[in-house]
Amino acid sequence: MPKPYQQLLERLRQIQCLNGTMALLSWDQEVTMPPGGARDRAAHRAALAGVIHEKLVDPELAALLATLAEAVDLDAAARANVRLTQQAHARAVRLPAALVRDQAQTASLAHGEWVQARAEDDWLGFAPFLDRLVDLKRQEAAALAIGDEPYDALLDSFETGARTADLLPLFAHLRVSLTELLGRCPVRGRVPAPRPAGIFPNDRQHELCRRVLTAIGYDFARGRLDISAHPFTETMGLGDVRVTTRYQSDNPLSGLYAVLHEGGHALYEQGLPADLRDLPAGQPASLGIHESQSQLWENFVGRSRAFCEWLAPLLRELFPAAYEGFAAADFYRAVNERTHTPIRIEADEVAYNLHIILRFEIERALIGGDLQAADVPVLWREKARAYLGLDVRDDRTGALQDIHWCTGGFGYFPTYALGNLYAAMFWETAQRDLVDLDDQLAAGQTDALRQWLRERIHERGAVLTAGELCREVTGRELDAAPFVAYLQQKYGELVRI
Amino acid sequence: MPKPYQQLLERLRQIQCLNGTMALLSWDQEVTMPPGGARDRAAHRAALAGVIHEKLVDPELAALLATLAEAVDLDAAARANVRLTQQAHARAVRLPAALVRDQAQTASLAHGEWVQARAEDDWLGFAPFLDRLVDLKRQEAAALAIGDEPYDALLDSFETGARTADLLPLFAHLRVSLTELLGRCPVRGRVPAPRPAGIFPNDRQHELCRRVLTAIGYDFARGRLDISAHPFTETMGLGDVRVTTRYQSDNPLSGLYAVLHEGGHALYEQGLPADLRDLPAGQPASLGIHESQSQLWENFVGRSRAFCEWLAPLLRELFPAAYEGFAAADFYRAVNERTHTPIRIEADEVAYNLHIILRFEIERALIGGDLQAADVPVLWREKARAYLGLDVRDDRTGALQDIHWCTGGFGYFPTYALGNLYAAMFWETAQRDLVDLDDQLAAGQTDALRQWLRERIHERGAVLTAGELCREVTGRELDAAPFVAYLQQKYGELVRI
Repeated sequence: MPKPYQQLLERLRQIQCLNGTMALLSWDQEVTMPPGGARDRAAHRAALAGVIHEKLVDPELAALLATLAEAVDLDAAARANVRLTQQAHARAVRLPAALVRDQAQTASLAHGEWVQARAEDDWLGFAPFLDRLVDLKRQEAAALAIGDEPYDALLDSFETGARTADLLPLFAHLRVSLTELLGRCPVRGRVPAPRPAGIFPNDRQHELCRRVLTAIGYDFARGRLDISAHPFTETMGLGDVRVTTRYQSDNPLSGLYAVLHEGGHALYEQGLPADLRDLPAGQPASLGIHESQSQLWENFVGRSRAFCEWLAPLLRELFPAAYEGFAAADFYRAVNERTHTPIRIEADEVAYNLHIILRFEIERALIGGDLQAADVPVLWREKARAYLGLDVRDDRTGALQDIHWCTGGFGYFPTYALGNLYAAMFWETAQRDLVDLDDQLAAGQTDALRQWLRERIHERGAVLTAGELCREVTGRELDAAPFVAYLQQKYGELVRI
Repeated sequence: MPKPYQQLLERLRQIQCLNGTMALLSWDQEVTMPPGGARDRAAHRAALAGVIHEKLVDPELAALLATLAEAVDLDAAARANVRLTQQAHARAVRLPAALVRDQAQTASLAHGEWVQARAEDDWLGFAPFLDRLVDLKRQEAAALAIGDEPYDALLDSFETGARTADLLPLFAHLRVSLTELLGRCPVRGRVPAPRPAGIFPNDRQHELCRRVLTAIGYDFARGRLDISAHPFTETMGLGDVRVTTRYQSDNPLSGLYAVLHEGGHALYEQGLPADLRDLPAGQPASLGIHESQSQLWENFVGRSRAFCEWLAPLLRELFPAAYEGFAAADFYRAVNERTHTPIRIEADEVAYNLHIILRFEIERALIGGDLQAADVPVLWREKARAYLGLDVRDDRTGALQDIHWCTGGFGYFPTYALGNLYAAMFWETAQRDLVDLDDQLAAGQTDALRQWLRERIHERGAVLTAGELCREVTGRELDAAPFVAYLQQKYGELVRI
């Protein structure tokens, strides 16, 4: 490898170490920080973000990148490091420091306003702050100048290379198919699945989550499980990938499926290529691919009939009174029950992506300048009725339910849907490659599946783009059909039970 | 304030935020980090240390300092910020990066060797690494060029402004007086203090420590109490000062006094001046002053007859079986029992500083080039016999017992002794100012004492040097007499009990 490339590597490792440090600042903030630490923490994060920004915009880095752009003797991983750094550098250079500062301050302010507006169901109190955030994000999009419409630049910051024009046909396919499937799986008129009653102590739920994380192959020597208000996964480095969950005292499934979801994220992070440690090419390929791993373990594995055969006895062992006489079939029905809820994070697998499409359409209109914040609730209600058959009664359970917009996260929602589509394609391929996968999962054996994911996806890091990775693993372009087929088969059967 | 000073403040706040971030990396490493995270953590610390170093040696910082050195319109706090930054800048500039790297690598290597040598009682296995560390520290001393002898430069890095020539008379006074006092308080022939037996569960010990920390005024909203292998205090910022302890299942006093010690450190950090937040002048005055605060709460308060009257019923409440019939007088005797141990951290108040003086004399000889590592054990045994009347049987309980040297911490030990001397002087003054202090402590009331410390010491930050602060608070120069008098009175009484 040429000398400029060695110099680039040194800089990239330093930047990645600072990113890993930032991750610890985040993890600690949600898990261990005392309340009085909030002010210091904000200052620490801002200082470290400033240093990382300095490193990214450094003209010497730009000079190295320019030299390496013409190098012909780089392998695929090296080319990926150059490409990814070029993208990060361009983004950092194009964003004016004043805009970044203004966004951070406005988001911080808007977050407080959102908390209050949600508590008081006061959309119009929040709307002016949303308009201001939208305006700043439009400025960001203009500065970045990526893609064909302003929304593209924001989308690209979460899912590099993704474009609105590519999402539209995928989402149209999803919207039509899922709406149709919803109509065939009504919530009303069904016998509800059995629901165990009782109090589920935290220590038993923790034991359940530890057992399940161990079963899916999460490496506790390189991580830990804690409690936080909202479950998340945080990566300090290849040797330190932590997950969190939360426990509801009357329902162990909430914490359990949160841990399967976060465990999927964590398996990806723990399986990244060691030889590209601390380098951009050794990081996850995209948020969409990341989400495919969490969805795959939470839903495709965790809510499968096979894995429920392993989970049901575990719940009977840990909560004998509550789960006495609870068969695997009961458990399978319970964790796949259709919901009829305006809340995205409580939605079942069929409804979930319709919640996402609704948000995508609204945020695209906001960023495109076609919609004012004050008009969001009316549109929200219309779409909830049309796509989900839901009457949204208040904004607290409507447009005020998600934290994303008030933190400036426009363009994030589509990655959830992309994750589902990728997951279905990977799952379809894995099922073809691993002929007795169901038998293995029914016995709680996940080694073959994890190894399959590791070799084909985790260990590839970000050497390939998300789209290239999808083609390499599945032989096909990203497509909604496998996801729709998966749901049609699963819910077709469930309706007949 | 002039504009260059405002620019300096901005830089200093950024540096302090990076220091606070480094503190979190340390705290997490000892308390929450999974074992697999060690490699990443070392890299993260190195990267962040590199950034802090870059900021300290920045020529623009040097230019600001040069401008401000001639400014006449600065107040005392501003002058302190300039002076302290000038010291840190000079230190960073003078230390060659190659030396710092070599020291870090050698210390890392030597730490592993020390762990093994201690386990195998193999001084000669460790000696070559110690010689190498000493050689590097001599290089550091030469580069820093502070004081009259090489040891001065190292001492100065832990206790700014302290010089060997000033320590010598203080330590001579201590050595003579404490050796004499030891002779009058023999361990043998005394009736041992009553010792409660039983198992002391962690959760009850934790409750004890929480109650005691709360009683001395530790603010849990700006901190937390955790378990680690070695108790310590870590400060992320004024709003986040954390303490740790450890619990021995057969002895609650170990964890309790560790928490009183760390609590003393933490009260200092939590009481620093808010208007100098994130600035050098708003940090602790010196390690010696810091140690005075921990020793004051652990020994002068925690082992006082008065506070034992409050502690004894608390132990009876939390451990009723073990402490049944245990009077305050029994407790007072138990926590002040003379020890006869070669281990520094198990030594009583009389013996402790003789352990320190022994180490000071040996490390000064090493750094002065007058002693080879191989010859340390012979000298150690001679001094242990002469000062402490102890026969040191092996190096595991002799020269291999402390971690300090193998991490390169030459010059640190004297700060423990300075802490005791400062504590005694502050205590003497506080007792004069607060006439019913004993009655208050016997009732577990610490507000007046804490307020006294806060106003006179904590809230002064580092605006004054340690020596200036001592003069301001006590009206006198640093002196060993108050400490000796305190011990003579206390142990004189204890011998008669």
